[in-house]
Amino acid sequence: MKTVQQIDALRRITASLKKPLGLVPTMGYLHEGHLSLVRNAKMDCKSVAVSIFVNPTQFGPSEDFENYPRNLEMDLRLLEKEKVDVVWMPTNEEMYPSDYQTWVTVEELARKLEGLKRPGHFRGVTTVVAKLFHAVQPDKAYFGQKDAQQSIVIQRMVQDLNMSVEVVVCPTIREPDGLAMSSRNSYLNLEERKAANVLYRALMKAQKAFEGGEHDADRLRKILSDTLAEEPLARPQYVSVADLKTLHELEGSITKALLSMAVYFGDTRLIDNIVLVD
Amino acid sequence: MKTVQQIDALRRITASLKKPLGLVPTMGYLHEGHLSLVRNAKMDCKSVAVSIFVNPTQFGPSEDFENYPRNLEMDLRLLEKEKVDVVWMPTNEEMYPSDYQTWVTVEELARKLEGLKRPGHFRGVTTVVAKLFHAVQPDKAYFGQKDAQQSIVIQRMVQDLNMSVEVVVCPTIREPDGLAMSSRNSYLNLEERKAANVLYRALMKAQKAFEGGEHDADRLRKILSDTLAEEPLARPQYVSVADLKTLHELEGSITKALLSMAVYFGDTRLIDNIVLVD
Repeated sequence: MKTVQQIDALRRITASLKKPLGLVPTMGYLHEGHLSLVRNAKMDCKSVAVSIFVNPTQFGPSEDFENYPRNLEMDLRLLEKEKVDVVWMPTNEEMYPSDYQTWVTVEELARKLEGLKRPGHFRGVTTVVAKLFHAVQPDKAYFGQKDAQQSIVIQRMVQDLNMSVEVVVCPTIREPDGLAMSSRNSYLNLEERKAANVLYRALMKAQKAFEGGEHDADRLRKILSDTLAEEPLARPQYVSVADLKTLHELEGSITKALLSMAVYFGDTRLIDNIVLVD
Repeated sequence: MKTVQQIDALRRITASLKKPLGLVPTMGYLHEGHLSLVRNAKMDCKSVAVSIFVNPTQFGPSEDFENYPRNLEMDLRLLEKEKVDVVWMPTNEEMYPSDYQTWVTVEELARKLEGLKRPGHFRGVTTVVAKLFHAVQPDKAYFGQKDAQQSIVIQRMVQDLNMSVEVVVCPTIREPDGLAMSSRNSYLNLEERKAANVLYRALMKAQKAFEGGEHDADRLRKILSDTLAEEPLARPQYVSVADLKTLHELEGSITKALLSMAVYFGDTRLIDNIVLVD
């Protein structure tokens, strides 16, 4: 497994790798969710590149960029075991030099849900993902369903800008109690950690109701809210039952939807989602 | 020479072309300026693709998108003679479907000079050029020095977004009287056409003064303005003596600069520029 920082050095390595080449973009502090993306890439592709970069431009000014968990040594050990071909760890200085001034923005889709609560977040995401795609030139790139809107926004960018990479979205990986794996789970104290599976419980309750014939969008949203309300440590920021393509909030009877939510536990903000299809 | 409209068909053709592949992006109505880009590409590259697309998103609402001159039959005849490998003529519908929503923007550089007078212009340019680059995946792309700021903005986009294409800027091609070739010259009536070489005369006068030791930015700007003022049909919109990298207006004594201007003749807006280097 090669590790590299500079883009020129990366290009020399990727040029020699067998195609198809898969890319797994990460912010490090890897967990089983990331590793499942790597394993999917290994199955599909002859070579796999992983990027580790805590991208400053997708964090708001009051968000957790400085405190975002980092453990490069552990990350490299885990990726070595997965037989990744190359790990790219770009520097802030090379990614965003002082006169940096180019941005890739997706408009409508990036203004909903997470975008509404984290202004500028998706501009940072689409810009850095465009940069990663251009530098690595992968045939396929792997993202987790846990960040559902991120995948939808990136797919829209790829389609709109005629990028030739295939975006592959892989299932959310969960802890035994249902909590979606996330590097940010490490922020939770023991009490919060126990409470945090309420996101999954709420999603499962709504899914069960949907499967039992409850197709009204408002009542599904109410099931999510009511379940979250039962957990005193949970402070919901939003719950949503949205169109899978446009992310508009749905009304009335639905046949499919993205159910998603953001919930605070102390200062820690967690998100989760499922897709319902009749 | 193959001609193609759909992106999928284009990709099948470019995949079979020998590398390096050169791209000459155009809006059609080709003149010797475009053909010199094609010839430069033919010299550097084993294959050459030309795109013809009057890009609606780089025209302002009151600009000349509808009336922009078009003559596809003549364009194809000219490109055939140059032994171009493939001509791509994308459709508006495929480039900008109704739910299109992704934009590539360069900030500071695109707000100066032309960007100040044509808000949104460079957002349209960088977006369409990113799309052309992604669809064609050229090794080199050819642009004319006549659109000096466009080249600077595109080079900044390529560098900031880690695109792997090399941007080649080719000299301005001029009519015998010095008028820079432009598809928009076809809008000029006979009187305006005769007057239009005042842009070149102004640039040459400033260059001569610079070479004679006049290095003061303000006095060089005054030479440009005074020369334009001698021509009654010319209505200057701006004259500029700007830093080659940042496009900031320069003050005091200079060693190098981009001299540029936009001038109306009736409804026709012409631009021209030269680079001065001590």
